[in-house]
Amino acid sequence: MTVTTHARVDSREVLARLIDDLGDAVSTAAEAVDATRADKSGHFSEAAPLAVVTARSIEDVQAVMRIATATGTPVVTRGAGTGLAGGAIANAGEIVLSTLAMNKLLEVSVDDELAVVEPGIINGDLNLQLEPHGLWFTPDPASRAISTVGGNIATNAGGLLCAKYGVTRESILGLSVVMADGRLMEFGHRTVKGVTGLDLTALMIGSEGTLGVIVGATVKLRRLIPGTVAVISARFETVDDAARAAAVITSAGLRPAIMELIGESAMAGISAHLRMEHLGGSRLVIQTDGPGAVQEAEAIFATITSLGGVGELSLDPAEGERLFSIRRAFHPSMAALGTVLIEDVCVPRSQLPAMFAAIHEIEQKYDLIIPTVAHAGDGNLHPNFVFDGEGEDGADVPAVIWAAADELFAAALRLGGTLTGEHGVGLLKRRWLREELGDDQLMLQKQIKDLFDPLGILNPGKVF
Amino acid sequence: MTVTTHARVDSREVLARLIDDLGDAVSTAAEAVDATRADKSGHFSEAAPLAVVTARSIEDVQAVMRIATATGTPVVTRGAGTGLAGGAIANAGEIVLSTLAMNKLLEVSVDDELAVVEPGIINGDLNLQLEPHGLWFTPDPASRAISTVGGNIATNAGGLLCAKYGVTRESILGLSVVMADGRLMEFGHRTVKGVTGLDLTALMIGSEGTLGVIVGATVKLRRLIPGTVAVISARFETVDDAARAAAVITSAGLRPAIMELIGESAMAGISAHLRMEHLGGSRLVIQTDGPGAVQEAEAIFATITSLGGVGELSLDPAEGERLFSIRRAFHPSMAALGTVLIEDVCVPRSQLPAMFAAIHEIEQKYDLIIPTVAHAGDGNLHPNFVFDGEGEDGADVPAVIWAAADELFAAALRLGGTLTGEHGVGLLKRRWLREELGDDQLMLQKQIKDLFDPLGILNPGKVF
Repeated sequence: MTVTTHARVDSREVLARLIDDLGDAVSTAAEAVDATRADKSGHFSEAAPLAVVTARSIEDVQAVMRIATATGTPVVTRGAGTGLAGGAIANAGEIVLSTLAMNKLLEVSVDDELAVVEPGIINGDLNLQLEPHGLWFTPDPASRAISTVGGNIATNAGGLLCAKYGVTRESILGLSVVMADGRLMEFGHRTVKGVTGLDLTALMIGSEGTLGVIVGATVKLRRLIPGTVAVISARFETVDDAARAAAVITSAGLRPAIMELIGESAMAGISAHLRMEHLGGSRLVIQTDGPGAVQEAEAIFATITSLGGVGELSLDPAEGERLFSIRRAFHPSMAALGTVLIEDVCVPRSQLPAMFAAIHEIEQKYDLIIPTVAHAGDGNLHPNFVFDGEGEDGADVPAVIWAAADELFAAALRLGGTLTGEHGVGLLKRRWLREELGDDQLMLQKQIKDLFDPLGILNPGKVF
Repeated sequence: MTVTTHARVDSREVLARLIDDLGDAVSTAAEAVDATRADKSGHFSEAAPLAVVTARSIEDVQAVMRIATATGTPVVTRGAGTGLAGGAIANAGEIVLSTLAMNKLLEVSVDDELAVVEPGIINGDLNLQLEPHGLWFTPDPASRAISTVGGNIATNAGGLLCAKYGVTRESILGLSVVMADGRLMEFGHRTVKGVTGLDLTALMIGSEGTLGVIVGATVKLRRLIPGTVAVISARFETVDDAARAAAVITSAGLRPAIMELIGESAMAGISAHLRMEHLGGSRLVIQTDGPGAVQEAEAIFATITSLGGVGELSLDPAEGERLFSIRRAFHPSMAALGTVLIEDVCVPRSQLPAMFAAIHEIEQKYDLIIPTVAHAGDGNLHPNFVFDGEGEDGADVPAVIWAAADELFAAALRLGGTLTGEHGVGLLKRRWLREELGDDQLMLQKQIKDLFDPLGILNPGKVF
């Protein structure tokens, strides 16, 4: 495969063509373009992009991609900008293609348990609109109140519930995609099953804007789960005890909807932030749902107690909310301490205690505190590196943090895990991609990328 | 992308190289090579392939692919040969690479709820070996007693349970794949989540031997479902009544593990085969499981009764088996009538009544009887075209049947459905692929195929 790079056209000429075709959808206002230099990763690009185009329709997206192809201009597709890996950060000379205004719920089919949505719809807004139908889009990244479904798809977002209800990939039936050259393609089906040709829908999911622009999605819905929700919150002396209890719970075949593990320094930070008495130790916060919710919660609570956990079990929704508020306070408590690099390694569930031990060693070696929470049901850990960001533009991650993160990734891979469970590779994890994939697979992945994007204009420098 | 076709080497030379490298793994015995001219589709290839190589190891597979690449010889990967679309049928000059002897369960992790298997392991055998661990591989194609896990992956097999428990794709974490040139690649993870790079695992699933040879799989397991299983069998006057009842059941948010709909002429055939009294009409056979099994079954039974269904609900396992035996007798009853082309269209669940109506129109127009069963929970129908196969080699499908099938596919696409829900495209549905995918997507899929298989030696003529 040879990649032909068009001679890049002068930026003013690109801008003129955009404005000709798209009018006031194009913004070059400083606040608009500057906002796209960052996401929620704490990373900033060197310079502002050329323009932000706020697409209002598939035709707008096609028009942008045609101009980008004709002029060899890079395009960064962006939703709400809540990414944690720099995947939607834009740099000098790039067009930002915002899908945030394409935010309509186009169709709900109760009978077929599906919805058709535009990519810019906020995950939480979609669920609010689905609730009257008794339906629910299950992917629930922690960012669900502010992140778009398009962004969830682009990163194959997970969340708290995904050990029981699956990651985003399991909820996507079909995708409408505008290709690099502006052609519109329809991948997948409206049906639950289908094996006609290669699964390009799955290939798009998690591709982080490098293969095409997602302009529509047919998503699979679930019925809202009726009945009681039970919540357990329990304290353990050490994170190792809590991680082992989580492992025993899953090994016993119990299937919590949510099982969050809060490490020791994370608990210390949350306690300080909430001005709670800090008892030390670690915490498991667990939720069960469905017809077996109470029975399962009782079995889990008995297991926890037998393993030295001390806590409470509540069937009251308000009390359950209160028990979860501790977990919810984690990100605000970290943000209050400084700039945060939120990592995202994932290991086989059984390796959670070993991964926590590895994090502890890294803390000691680098004289850092790395507060960590984990989705214990699926082995996904979020170690938080907190550091002093120097001013608005200088929040880039210090070398010592990257050195510690490097050991973190190596430990995850050694334990049979992966660099990123749900945040994506973006800009920030590119340097470790080869280590996980190997040379041969990385080359094959790049060849697929080249096939979709022969000019290299789709989110260049991200992932690959 | 240009495809270089090597000058094909003389067959005797290819055979000599295979025997040099692989010894008695290579067979040219008439019964061995002839057996690979067919699968369970009723289709036969024109002539026997060059040889059957029974691989015993990944190294054997690599050796075959290196020779195939060096000599430009086509390779048809084959498991148990139970396919229904001709995907593993071999023709003159081809090497059949059998993975049937690579049938070991290599690892079970109860804690991580996963297993590592070789591709030739029979689905039912894997589940027998998992049972003592309290675990279960959920994909359950009707062929599970005779089909391999490798074949299940190659076709993204569905089955009776997949509306509740997912298709094969949802159960595959990682794959070991030997590429066309003999290199071994590892796709995917051992973890539940992971978004490092493009999802090549998903791309392989359902690719029907056209992208590489699956030589190992890390599969996700579930706990065996404890508690009672409830079975309902109910008769309706017409298939339309039964299909509407199925739609009401899913619309009410009830979630049977199995919901099989048996059409009117299918019931007539089964009754004759089992020498049962034939009451006319259609039948729904439903199973519920899990902690809400009994409650759900009672709600379903009440729905059925209110919609004119007459039947029984049993919590007794032996009685449940008896109620299901009617559904199980469908394929034998059809096979007793002649040669069968088992079709596999899938429509959005809500379109099941419309699809049955379309089948009825096609029956009248072509003066055919097309006995049909459907997995009503996911909208997947198996219309059976029964015809006289003339002798062992002459079982090819008559033109009138293909003409009727053509209308069947058109109706499924018109109703928002797909050509194939779970059997794959293989040889038999290639001619309709363009209609579903469109020119642009078909071209893109072919380009991906060329990237994995630049010489065009992997299952040529299948799917594309």
